Amino acid sequence: MSENKYTIGIDFGTESGRAVLVETKTGKEIATSIYSYENGVIDEKLPLAGAPVQLEPEWALQDPQDYIRTFQNAVPDMLSLAGVNSEDVIGIGIDFTACTMLPVKRDGTPLCTLPDYRRNPHSWVKLWKHHAAQPEADKINATARRMGETWLDRYGGKISSEWFFAKTLQILDEAPDIYAAADRLIEAADWVVWQLTGVEKRNSCTAGYKAMWSKKEGYPPDTFFKELDPRLENVVDQKMSRDIYPIGEKAGELTPQAAEWTGLKAGTAVAIANVDAHVSVPATTVTGSGRMVMIMGTSICHMLLGEDERQVEGMCGVVEDGIIPGLFGFEAGQSGVGDIFAWFLDNCIPAAYQREAREREMDIHQLLEEKAAVQKPGQHGLLALDWWNGNRSVLVDVDLSGLLIGATLGTKAEDIYRALVEATAYGTRIIIEAFEKNGVRVDELVACGGLPEKNKMLMQIYADVTGRNFKISAAKQTPALGSAMFGAVAAGRRAGGYDTVFEAARHMARLKNEVYQPIPANQKIYDRLFAEYVRLHDYFGRGENNVMKTLKQIRDQVC
Amino acid sequence: MSENKYTIGIDFGTESGRAVLVETKTGKEIATSIYSYENGVIDEKLPLAGAPVQLEPEWALQDPQDYIRTFQNAVPDMLSLAGVNSEDVIGIGIDFTACTMLPVKRDGTPLCTLPDYRRNPHSWVKLWKHHAAQPEADKINATARRMGETWLDRYGGKISSEWFFAKTLQILDEAPDIYAAADRLIEAADWVVWQLTGVEKRNSCTAGYKAMWSKKEGYPPDTFFKELDPRLENVVDQKMSRDIYPIGEKAGELTPQAAEWTGLKAGTAVAIANVDAHVSVPATTVTGSGRMVMIMGTSICHMLLGEDERQVEGMCGVVEDGIIPGLFGFEAGQSGVGDIFAWFLDNCIPAAYQREAREREMDIHQLLEEKAAVQKPGQHGLLALDWWNGNRSVLVDVDLSGLLIGATLGTKAEDIYRALVEATAYGTRIIIEAFEKNGVRVDELVACGGLPEKNKMLMQIYADVTGRNFKISAAKQTPALGSAMFGAVAAGRRAGGYDTVFEAARHMARLKNEVYQPIPANQKIYDRLFAEYVRLHDYFGRGENNVMKTLKQIRDQVC
Repeated sequence: MSENKYTIGIDFGTESGRAVLVETKTGKEIATSIYSYENGVIDEKLPLAGAPVQLEPEWALQDPQDYIRTFQNAVPDMLSLAGVNSEDVIGIGIDFTACTMLPVKRDGTPLCTLPDYRRNPHSWVKLWKHHAAQPEADKINATARRMGETWLDRYGGKISSEWFFAKTLQILDEAPDIYAAADRLIEAADWVVWQLTGVEKRNSCTAGYKAMWSKKEGYPPDTFFKELDPRLENVVDQKMSRDIYPIGEKAGELTPQAAEWTGLKAGTAVAIANVDAHVSVPATTVTGSGRMVMIMGTSICHMLLGEDERQVEGMCGVVEDGIIPGLFGFEAGQSGVGDIFAWFLDNCIPAAYQREAREREMDIHQLLEEKAAVQKPGQHGLLALDWWNGNRSVLVDVDLSGLLIGATLGTKAEDIYRALVEATAYGTRIIIEAFEKNGVRVDELVACGGLPEKNKMLMQIYADVTGRNFKISAAKQTPALGSAMFGAVAAGRRAGGYDTVFEAARHMARLKNEVYQPIPANQKIYDRLFAEYVRLHDYFGRGENNVMKTLKQIRDQVC
Repeated sequence: MSENKYTIGIDFGTESGRAVLVETKTGKEIATSIYSYENGVIDEKLPLAGAPVQLEPEWALQDPQDYIRTFQNAVPDMLSLAGVNSEDVIGIGIDFTACTMLPVKRDGTPLCTLPDYRRNPHSWVKLWKHHAAQPEADKINATARRMGETWLDRYGGKISSEWFFAKTLQILDEAPDIYAAADRLIEAADWVVWQLTGVEKRNSCTAGYKAMWSKKEGYPPDTFFKELDPRLENVVDQKMSRDIYPIGEKAGELTPQAAEWTGLKAGTAVAIANVDAHVSVPATTVTGSGRMVMIMGTSICHMLLGEDERQVEGMCGVVEDGIIPGLFGFEAGQSGVGDIFAWFLDNCIPAAYQREAREREMDIHQLLEEKAAVQKPGQHGLLALDWWNGNRSVLVDVDLSGLLIGATLGTKAEDIYRALVEATAYGTRIIIEAFEKNGVRVDELVACGGLPEKNKMLMQIYADVTGRNFKISAAKQTPALGSAMFGAVAAGRRAGGYDTVFEAARHMARLKNEVYQPIPANQKIYDRLFAEYVRLHDYFGRGENNVMKTLKQIRDQVC
């Protein structure tokens, strides 16, 4: 046994699970191993022998065995890479995509592993991006509005088709036998903790952000569920649980079976489950109000802490204990960021640029950034609305679409690219202003995720547009580090961990030294451009001109 | 001497002059020869030895010797290709870009050929697309509005920086010595006819469309010119002429010198000069009201005839005898059409498409059309405002810019391409509706120019969007054919030509057999999309949201 103690964070993503071993004293990432899910995202047909079972459009499933295989493969591999003795591993934390949920038997057996249900798609894990429950989400929203349900305000006035009860209602609507056979309906995050510890303990983060639960009010009343569908009246008591555990607590200890899977010691402390975006907050040193954490990749999740509950327009949710125990966690989001840039690179880059990138042995993204970065703000004369993938916050409207204005015969690819980056920065500023308007302070921005590392121009533009310092997480695997921190808290100080996530953050989380600071001359120009953005945002986004919806309606009618 | 008689049309374009020999009885194009101007478009420095004379941005000049060289090269070459005896050539007509003007001495000698003036850019020909006289155009418009000048209404309320008096005033402002040395200021169209015939005769088309002249009222009053600049008070009497000849008349006969240049017979009839777009109207069989001729290339000129003078919003001009003698000729235009498509092809086509085009041995334009043509109207979900190069009719605003709305992560290059084509069709429909609102009928469309031949999808979209039959000129060189027709009229029936352009059109002009007819199902969808286009057109184009101008202002300030 060494003096150094370690915890493990396991981050369950969309395509793979990654296990990271972290030194508890310093937060140093010692070793990482990634397990690519054998069945990945299941969106065409079920991975079964025999007659194929095709999936409808908008479906996205996963195989729960892939989570178990992550334990069986990534953790031992990581341990062997690190050369660390399992005796020195004191805790485990996990984070997951959400809402990713599944129907299971009372003992936790997923229905999709049972021969009777296996060929019914509804028995499988519904992944966060399963979008086939929109009619159910619409029904939930309409019913809640009709009944004057106040919990709706905690979710910016609208719940998403991605969330727990939309998915649950879809199972009930389309596969009542599966619904009946499911003793439990559960977030995959909580299910994997159950598999590690043998106990079903549900976390406050997914309950709050995805299942309309709050610490003060619990779940929506049974009368609401009854109104939605009489068969759903007692869903919480029958198939879920009213016992919700705040993140930061210990869920239990590793069972002998789970110890065998992972090569870890039975009895190792396991933390209450968490969500990838939310667990990143303390991993970027943020455990108090005023600093907004942005998980930047294909989309952006904005995370913010506050002392009080506040209603903020178009927010995804506010949850007490949702991110850090004792505080209210606010979540907002932009549904298209990196994926808009990727769309642009795939669809709009002339061959001459591809050639230049090849000749100079550069990535096309780098070349474009190089050309765009030398421009002054406003120089390209363009403005865009960053709604290629709809708008999450603050308009909560998937039917909005992208707009580009100001094009001339002199407009170049790098001009459009820079305008798209700026548009996403304006989108973030809209969210910041919505928070501040409602008394939730945003003094500084902290980034993690794939984009910030790669794109200095983007970081500077965000600082200039928002007028705030912008810093970057030092962690390579921010969510896994966050989970490892919660693992250290589950273990506790006496075992070599920490008693609170605040302590864990002080010791284990770090930012990079570089700070992107707003440049006053740029800010002045961006203030003027942002005013134009706001005007277009409101004109096209708030019902004055619904042309974006009309275009989609016409498209749907002719197709 | 053969029984067949011939006339020659010479079309002076931006980069070259083309001479076409036409059989007078049938309009058949016998031979064509193109002379590429030695000095082309002069927009960087004067083509002189010694210290370079640089030009300012927005300047565009030509060398008048290139017009003489066109006579000397293209005409003899064309004759030799045709194997036709010059005895059988009975008439010549020319058409020119406009307003393309130059300062000359009393005997017609261009100032730029004289050593004293040659190094001053203002002594050269100012080409139609010389755009450096915008301050002067602004001053003319402001002065005319202040003085309540009614002629302004004939030009949609605004004259262009491209026109005659803007260019004249720029010479006076910036080079008063050149202005003083110029005995005559003249359209290049009239100058080349002068070089052929030895007589200065000015045509009604350029006088009317480019120099604010009308058959009823003549030029603006001297008091207006005095108010503009006291030195300009007598510009018309001193440097121009009040004798304006309707197109369709004979200007004179070929001089011995011009006969030597061309290899034609001295004494051959020469028609009054004309403009490329306007001369195309009878060449597409149109000599009466109700049929709109569209010259479709980088931009579109819309030409229409009527029995009465009408005010139409944003029209470029209405001129009596301007297109066909005895009728009012209306002109409108779209400043960006083919050049928007070219911009898109140059700047926004992914490498994979270039590869596919190469592999299938197709032109990239063809490939894009193939992919776009299979779509139904409305299928791509996009809408564009076709203002990449500003808006000529009906908004008359160079500071407007392009807009694309409706983009998603699924949007493909062919979607945007089709949306751009449709946007230009909506732009034409706006013009048609402006005419019809003011009592000028548009029953049918007739196209000539480079685009219609190449792009069947575009033609069908225009028919569907406008709800009108769309036909195409059968001529390969429509303007040159038109000039040859006017040459036949200048020669007269007794010489083997015609007495009127109506007769000439009946015999010499033809349309292709194919007719693009509107498809009712498509029209229905395009009506809905056009309603959305109109709303965006008015919102961004009529002052409610001036974001396009603001973006240009910011761009100009930061650059």
